[in-house]
Amino acid sequence: MNTSDYIIETITVLGTAAFALSAVLAALDKQLDIFSITVLGIITAVGGGTIRDCILSVPVFWALDISYITIAIVACIIGFFAFPLVQLGRANKLYLYIDAVAIAMFAIQGANKAWEMGFGLPVAPVMLGVITATGGGVIRDVLLHRPSLLLNKELYAIPVALGCIFYTIIYLFLPEYIEFGAVAACSLIVYLRHLSIQKHVCVPQWAIIKHH
Amino acid sequence: MNTSDYIIETITVLGTAAFALSAVLAALDKQLDIFSITVLGIITAVGGGTIRDCILSVPVFWALDISYITIAIVACIIGFFAFPLVQLGRANKLYLYIDAVAIAMFAIQGANKAWEMGFGLPVAPVMLGVITATGGGVIRDVLLHRPSLLLNKELYAIPVALGCIFYTIIYLFLPEYIEFGAVAACSLIVYLRHLSIQKHVCVPQWAIIKHH
Amino acid sequence: MNTSDYIIETITVLGTAAFALSAVLAALDKQLDIFSITVLGIITAVGGGTIRDCILSVPVFWALDISYITIAIVACIIGFFAFPLVQLGRANKLYLYIDAVAIAMFAIQGANKAWEMGFGLPVAPVMLGVITATGGGVIRDVLLHRPSLLLNKELYAIPVALGCIFYTIIYLFLPEYIEFGAVAACSLIVYLRHLSIQKHVCVPQWAIIKHH
Repeated sequence: MNTSDYIIETITVLGTAAFALSAVLAALDKQLDIFSITVLGIITAVGGGTIRDCILSVPVFWALDISYITIAIVACIIGFFAFPLVQLGRANKLYLYIDAVAIAMFAIQGANKAWEMGFGLPVAPVMLGVITATGGGVIRDVLLHRPSLLLNKELYAIPVALGCIFYTIIYLFLPEYIEFGAVAACSLIVYLRHLSIQKHVCVPQWAIIKHH
Repeated sequence: MNTSDYIIETITVLGTAAFALSAVLAALDKQLDIFSITVLGIITAVGGGTIRDCILSVPVFWALDISYITIAIVACIIGFFAFPLVQLGRANKLYLYIDAVAIAMFAIQGANKAWEMGFGLPVAPVMLGVITATGGGVIRDVLLHRPSLLLNKELYAIPVALGCIFYTIIYLFLPEYIEFGAVAACSLIVYLRHLSIQKHVCVPQWAIIKHH
Repeated sequence: MNTSDYIIETITVLGTAAFALSAVLAALDKQLDIFSITVLGIITAVGGGTIRDCILSVPVFWALDISYITIAIVACIIGFFAFPLVQLGRANKLYLYIDAVAIAMFAIQGANKAWEMGFGLPVAPVMLGVITATGGGVIRDVLLHRPSLLLNKELYAIPVALGCIFYTIIYLFLPEYIEFGAVAACSLIVYLRHLSIQKHVCVPQWAIIKHH
């Protein structure tokens, strides 16, 4: 395994764990038990990729590599006992950045999977990238009766969509630079999430629909 | 392309746009931004057919023909800027009729796809017709935390189901008249929706469960 | 058809009916009409297995054998007219036990289907068993805006998961006793549900996350 594979695997592990931990954080004000949290954590971590693989009609990724489920379970158990730490502002911010890297990785992974299968080019890679990155979180919010992150004024789905569109444009016009494109698209997503987390950049007023 | 194909394509475009516009209307009292509305519009427009294609294990229709996604996006952007017009009573009624034609078309399209694949006859065509026509709207309502249209006293799912059952009966007993059956089934759905929209016909009292 | 097949078929019929009836019970305080209840009953009865079959990329079970849909419809219609009887304490408890047998059967059926396809062993059988048994109820609760049974302090998903894990261990280490393992796993699920129904055993206090 070379350095690049090692980096990707590390980020995948951290990303899956970050998604699972988001279920622990979401559960804090719901008095959930550790088992419910673990179920929710697994759904959050693998939900998006599962929808993507159903749409692509390929075997789901967590059936091919069981480590995703294992990581999600371990992250939920650690998160359950460590949650007072997670609640601290700094840990929360760390979590937001891990989550940002995770959605960036998963978005480009999802878009890339559609490209490699030549599936519905060039629209489907963008759709599937967004679905992979946000699907699990959407199901988590539905099950917890929380406002959906898809409909949030915070920049969450927009960075993911822009990153996937950027990646798709590189694939279309500069396919020989696609490795660079993947890194740039991930960086773009993480940077836009950073603006939202650190600078509280959000959707401008003119873009919000108003009821008269 | 002959006249019949041209009519079907026109109605498909209008139907996809109508579904997408329903997300704009649904967003009016939620202060959503244009990006969230577009995401919601795409989900509403292609959600039902996506579930149908996952169940049928065939490639999703919007991967084979990207115009569906394009139409949904354009409809959402136009709807966002034109929504004061859409709010007017007459525009709203026009919208309800376009939506009625759209669910009729999509229901029969969904039922027909199951028939052509010989999939789970004769029950699956009815199920898949209803899923195609209502699935997107159901997901939209779940994401917006609105009461589901499936559980509405208004006639929405009933016309769709009756239309699909009628189409299935024609396919079973009079397959040589199936083109006529498709038109008649669509007309039945639109007529029942018309009764609901114009005459406020709804579910009778005896059919509503009561808690003692 | 031998005795064993006859027992399995009887339990499948009762289980499907129990799932469908749960929609009638859930509808009691929502003033739903018979048609909405039937739609909800069908979704509850076949939802879990449908998600499982989409993940497994196999034709959905209700397309191969239409009796599932028929049973769900008949159970909803009977339940609608008989609901004052269903409300009585004893009928309700009977219902909970039929439901317990149903989730046990459906969980092991789901796990077994994954094993027979050699799909994602040994994690996927547990996941798919839980999805088959609980998926329909989860969708029902989402559509009714009720707290999800997955996140309930009552023992519902835990027995199902433990039963599937037990079944998976038998399959891994004692495959020659798998028929016995299936019966034992089902019994375990029913017994744990019995403890929850009769003795009100629930998740212990230490396992519940607390917000400081």
